[in-house]
Amino acid sequence: MNILFVMYDQLRFDYLSCSGHPHLKTPNFDRVAARGVRFTNAYVQSPVCGPSRMSFYTGRYVSSHGAQWNGYPLRVGELTLGDHLRALGMGCWLIGKTHMKADAEGMGRLGLASDSLIGARQAECGFDAFVRDDGLWGYGPDGWYDEKRSPYNEYLASQGYDGENPWADYANAGVSDEAQMASGWMFENAERAANVREEDSETPWLTREAMRFVDQAMAPWCAHVSYIKPHWPYIVPAPYHAMYGPDDILPPVRDASELEAPHPVLAAYHDTRVSQAFRQDEVRRKVIPAYMGLIRQCDDQLGRLLDHLEASGEANDTMIVLTSDHGDYLGDHWLGEKDFFHEASVKIPLIILDPRRDADATRGTTCGALVEAIDLCATFIEAAGGAVPDHIVEGRSLMPWLHGQPPKTWREVVVSEYDYSVTPRAEALGVSPRDARLFMVFDGRWKLIHAEGGFRPMLFDLANDPGEFKDLGDDTEASGEIARLYDHLARWSRRMSQRVTISDDQIRNRRGKSARRGILPFLVDGSEVPADLTERYRGPARQDHRDSD
Amino acid sequence: MNILFVMYDQLRFDYLSCSGHPHLKTPNFDRVAARGVRFTNAYVQSPVCGPSRMSFYTGRYVSSHGAQWNGYPLRVGELTLGDHLRALGMGCWLIGKTHMKADAEGMGRLGLASDSLIGARQAECGFDAFVRDDGLWGYGPDGWYDEKRSPYNEYLASQGYDGENPWADYANAGVSDEAQMASGWMFENAERAANVREEDSETPWLTREAMRFVDQAMAPWCAHVSYIKPHWPYIVPAPYHAMYGPDDILPPVRDASELEAPHPVLAAYHDTRVSQAFRQDEVRRKVIPAYMGLIRQCDDQLGRLLDHLEASGEANDTMIVLTSDHGDYLGDHWLGEKDFFHEASVKIPLIILDPRRDADATRGTTCGALVEAIDLCATFIEAAGGAVPDHIVEGRSLMPWLHGQPPKTWREVVVSEYDYSVTPRAEALGVSPRDARLFMVFDGRWKLIHAEGGFRPMLFDLANDPGEFKDLGDDTEASGEIARLYDHLARWSRRMSQRVTISDDQIRNRRGKSARRGILPFLVDGSEVPADLTERYRGPARQDHRDSD
Repeated sequence: MNILFVMYDQLRFDYLSCSGHPHLKTPNFDRVAARGVRFTNAYVQSPVCGPSRMSFYTGRYVSSHGAQWNGYPLRVGELTLGDHLRALGMGCWLIGKTHMKADAEGMGRLGLASDSLIGARQAECGFDAFVRDDGLWGYGPDGWYDEKRSPYNEYLASQGYDGENPWADYANAGVSDEAQMASGWMFENAERAANVREEDSETPWLTREAMRFVDQAMAPWCAHVSYIKPHWPYIVPAPYHAMYGPDDILPPVRDASELEAPHPVLAAYHDTRVSQAFRQDEVRRKVIPAYMGLIRQCDDQLGRLLDHLEASGEANDTMIVLTSDHGDYLGDHWLGEKDFFHEASVKIPLIILDPRRDADATRGTTCGALVEAIDLCATFIEAAGGAVPDHIVEGRSLMPWLHGQPPKTWREVVVSEYDYSVTPRAEALGVSPRDARLFMVFDGRWKLIHAEGGFRPMLFDLANDPGEFKDLGDDTEASGEIARLYDHLARWSRRMSQRVTISDDQIRNRRGKSARRGILPFLVDGSEVPADLTERYRGPARQDHRDSD
Repeated sequence: MNILFVMYDQLRFDYLSCSGHPHLKTPNFDRVAARGVRFTNAYVQSPVCGPSRMSFYTGRYVSSHGAQWNGYPLRVGELTLGDHLRALGMGCWLIGKTHMKADAEGMGRLGLASDSLIGARQAECGFDAFVRDDGLWGYGPDGWYDEKRSPYNEYLASQGYDGENPWADYANAGVSDEAQMASGWMFENAERAANVREEDSETPWLTREAMRFVDQAMAPWCAHVSYIKPHWPYIVPAPYHAMYGPDDILPPVRDASELEAPHPVLAAYHDTRVSQAFRQDEVRRKVIPAYMGLIRQCDDQLGRLLDHLEASGEANDTMIVLTSDHGDYLGDHWLGEKDFFHEASVKIPLIILDPRRDADATRGTTCGALVEAIDLCATFIEAAGGAVPDHIVEGRSLMPWLHGQPPKTWREVVVSEYDYSVTPRAEALGVSPRDARLFMVFDGRWKLIHAEGGFRPMLFDLANDPGEFKDLGDDTEASGEIARLYDHLARWSRRMSQRVTISDDQIRNRRGKSARRGILPFLVDGSEVPADLTERYRGPARQDHRDSD
């Protein structure tokens, strides 16, 4: 079986028609959901691209793999999907974005050249890169944000787009009424059509790369088709720029009470430029239709990819996974971007279609189990025929849910983390880089958010307050729930996460073996153990080497 | 400055004359203590060889480096003393034991050959091995316990000792009255002289290797001179076998009440063969004098090494560190071996002599600060002229204490861990390998021991119960202390231990830089940022690529 592991970037869980959006139409997501399982309580390990993805790719919590924010290198040697799947005979390919930064210092220390096969895989997060393009081609006074080459920019250049960064100048910019460049970086331009032929825009380009991959791939393969969209810059080419308008956007999920005496950490989030921008109705009225247009384009391209897979004959032998690395506040809770733990940010869409007969019983159903992003790595290992090395991979396979055989025990809480040490919020709050860390523990009803650095916790009761408006973190009546969730956090924090070089089975097999290798330390006279262990110490001393007096 | 980092194995903190043993004479330890600082509250990160040493060598807690028991491989790429010191221009050499098992699988995955320089350092825990000998040369029906070569066995063979394992047959065996081999594996033989010329026994042999190292070393160097003794087998050559007798041994630190309804985990320890053996007075009467003789021999050899260092002219430029990887119960608390958290096991001797003038104020003093084994790595980095990379090294430099300038803040608790997953106790207690883990949190008075797997905690009050006889873990009056120490454990468990690829300073320096590299996501109209960041997006659109309708 192959695995088509499609990731969108910054796609909210509720911006699909199958998950209930009343205006946005996503027939191709719905088509997969109708034949697979849609997980309705799936959460990322960190609501920001880099660390979230490193958790998807390693199957490990963020504080286990350590790449805790965008551009924090993933430690050399950390095992990834590619290591696990290739060992099982399945290729593991990248088409698109990983947001992985290689541990150049670590690689140098170990003498790994990035142009060697091993070095390249280390540098590409374990994938073999069919095409890697991280999709954020910023260029400013201090140079490029991302110094890698951009296959997408090269493509645009080949199609006649001029300048050194057509990604910014055309694919992510429109044209003003005065024929001026109208950069997608400015929200005021979000309503314009991107100055790019639709077929040249990022999502169709990457879809063609994915189809090209399918045409030449040797099964079994796992293909990580990883789109940058609907991530900002919020601008989309015609006709998608005009498909949705202010009437199609939903009112923000927010309440005036959220701004009254907020938790200090949340207050720092309220103060960011993006949050301030999304408070303006004008911004939401322009940005959200563009965001919806980008999703609609993703859906159309998904349709092309699905059709191509069917035409190739591989569809019946390919598991299809659709997900995202985090959501987007879009003004909910007086916030923009992601980076915090309300549902809009930390919850993700997750749809899995297993083509095998074993999954027939669950087709078209939803599953409300508490699922974490790290579960995909375990699921894929099982799909590739392997046993999950659970001393390394901290997620659990979702296969039982897909096959209608729910496991007897399942996790009681999901945990997500956020390291804001590199952001101005850390400075504003006066916390050190190592204290600028947040932890969410959510049991399906109660959501606890712990902040290092001496802050009180936050708490939301999603049963009585599904909008997550009322922070009960200083409510004495909630102290029992707070203590209970802190217990979960403590247990999780003590988890066995770094004993990655020896499995539980290897440990069991080693028990009691040292005596049979001549280590006999605890004998009074030797009668305590079988004679064959001590026989070599019986008999005359062969030589006498004792010092004489 | 050089560093002479001497480690003994299984040397109790209180078996030196400078630390108060009334009968054992250790004039050379005392000689270093008289010119240095003796730390009276130094603790290991795990009371068993392998993980304790990996913490010494990495400066990281056991659950951070993951090599949680003897022979659990240290993950490839984990940074060690050698990495830190060599980067500062100081060689880092091994003479003796590390108990490190290389991560052969990880090395294979990264293509590291163990005969390459990088591979060899990975395999030798970061040291350049002047001579490596782990000192436990067991051989049994299933072969060698340790499949590496033994320079010590090769030395014995070169001196005419016959057989394939003279370590076991001569250096660690005596001769019975009937001229039979009297193996040191059997406690009943501990009173006999080892069947080896004293100069051929392990401690003098390794001392000569250390002197040979000094004679040819290029300064600055760190030399880890790491003795296997006074670790079992408990047998010592003449004249040391006869230096101490039953009258010299101290009564066991134990109380009958400890056997009444003990904590289940402790009960499993009581049931081990070694604990049962050490309950026998006959065993203690034979073993402890041998143990004392081994220490006395260590002390004599330390004297030779110190004299040699002085004669070489390096003494005034060499920091001397004397310590051990854990203690030895010797029957205290009805236990033998180490592996648990009473002072006899988890507390270590630690003496540091800094030859520089800055340390003159503290010569011959003691320091009662709560010190951890991981502090040495930080201390050595500072001694080599470096700044401690505290995103990697979790210990703190002891230099301020050595220089009589105690830091304003210091740790409130020490933490030690123990993974008993490979031992029969895990099976006896019915806990899974990942739950077979213990944590000690000690604040200098209260010692909390937490056991995973659903057990109640243990608690000792060393102020009122210095013997650690009374477990208050189920005493409701102690619940406040228990909660307080659990808070410490929770905070420690959430520590920032795996973000090892980026330092706090690098994080601070990165703040706010992405805008100057062209990432401008949160602008409404561009007026929010300096004009040079947006100027490239102003002006006419150069080309029009929009699809026409």
